[in-house]
Amino acid sequence: MADNIEFWFDFTSPYSYLATRKVEEVGQTTGREVVWRPFLLGVVFKETGNRPLLDQPIKGAYAKQDLPRMARYLKMPWSRPENFPILTIAAQRAYYAIERNDPAAAKAFAKRAFATYFGQGTDISSTKTVVGIAAEDGIDPAALETDLGDDAVKQIVKDRTAEAVERGVCGAPFFFVGDQGFWGSDRLWMVKKWIQRGGW
Amino acid sequence: MADNIEFWFDFTSPYSYLATRKVEEVGQTTGREVVWRPFLLGVVFKETGNRPLLDQPIKGAYAKQDLPRMARYLKMPWSRPENFPILTIAAQRAYYAIERNDPAAAKAFAKRAFATYFGQGTDISSTKTVVGIAAEDGIDPAALETDLGDDAVKQIVKDRTAEAVERGVCGAPFFFVGDQGFWGSDRLWMVKKWIQRGGW
Repeated sequence: MADNIEFWFDFTSPYSYLATRKVEEVGQTTGREVVWRPFLLGVVFKETGNRPLLDQPIKGAYAKQDLPRMARYLKMPWSRPENFPILTIAAQRAYYAIERNDPAAAKAFAKRAFATYFGQGTDISSTKTVVGIAAEDGIDPAALETDLGDDAVKQIVKDRTAEAVERGVCGAPFFFVGDQGFWGSDRLWMVKKWIQRGGW
Repeated sequence: MADNIEFWFDFTSPYSYLATRKVEEVGQTTGREVVWRPFLLGVVFKETGNRPLLDQPIKGAYAKQDLPRMARYLKMPWSRPENFPILTIAAQRAYYAIERNDPAAAKAFAKRAFATYFGQGTDISSTKTVVGIAAEDGIDPAALETDLGDDAVKQIVKDRTAEAVERGVCGAPFFFVGDQGFWGSDRLWMVKKWIQRGGW
């Protein structure tokens, strides 16, 4: 079976937000399913010794020029959140809880969560906000809130994050096609070419 | 007058080497002169708290997959140097010494220095090696060696590096079109579009 495109991201990663604009398009063009895989980027940063981009001297200033410019290019709303970075564990648990029953609904939730955080600048770290975002697409709030406390759901986030570290996900967004990793929203063109040419 | 494309790089930066493949093509397509600007990346790393990519846990492993893959894509020779990173101050002084008389010859020298280091994997840190590389394009070795000790030439490298820090060059390669910075060899497409569209 042909490899899926794996899309590894964190809801607090601005370039992951930007990647959501075209990742499914690359899947459609290449005829590959895109599997979305949120993980806790902060855990990876502990391994790599990195810090969130917007917090870094010099690089942070660059990101403040580049992110709105890229958002305009992609015709995506952009609003730099006052609270950054944030804990996204509630959003990630919600993602995987929804995905158990309906992967397409989980992607819709992820897009809405990203649009709330980076499109409107609204903090999405609280359970209440996360449940509210999901409710806009018809997810039952009470059931989702129960799921967020479910040990099995909590374990999925831990497992995915451990998997990200083990497989060498060095930042976000990060894509896999089989054993080939591609780091950065800038690299979607290469994911596409790699699949179309069968590598090189 | 239309802005030049400024190409900021260090000879010890592998993605800068990869950028040399297409940067002049972007200049030709857009009708803009490309001005090459070597600077000491290590000084910027001190400001940003970063380390050379290949040295970092996880990111280094990614780079070891990505760099040869990108080189194959660009049809450039690739050989990971045993000595990495290296001090490139001699190569940078040579660049600016040659550039004073002949910018095109300086670019030819830079391409040959990059090809020696990342194409063949040969350390280019010594004055002797640098002078030998320049000699292959007809630069007089004795005259160049004298220039490398010239205080005015040494000062150019210091000034360019200080300028890089001041203008927010957060890594290499880095491009400027006027006040717009573009970081990474991945961003040449954006440099081109920015010029063609007159921004957005």
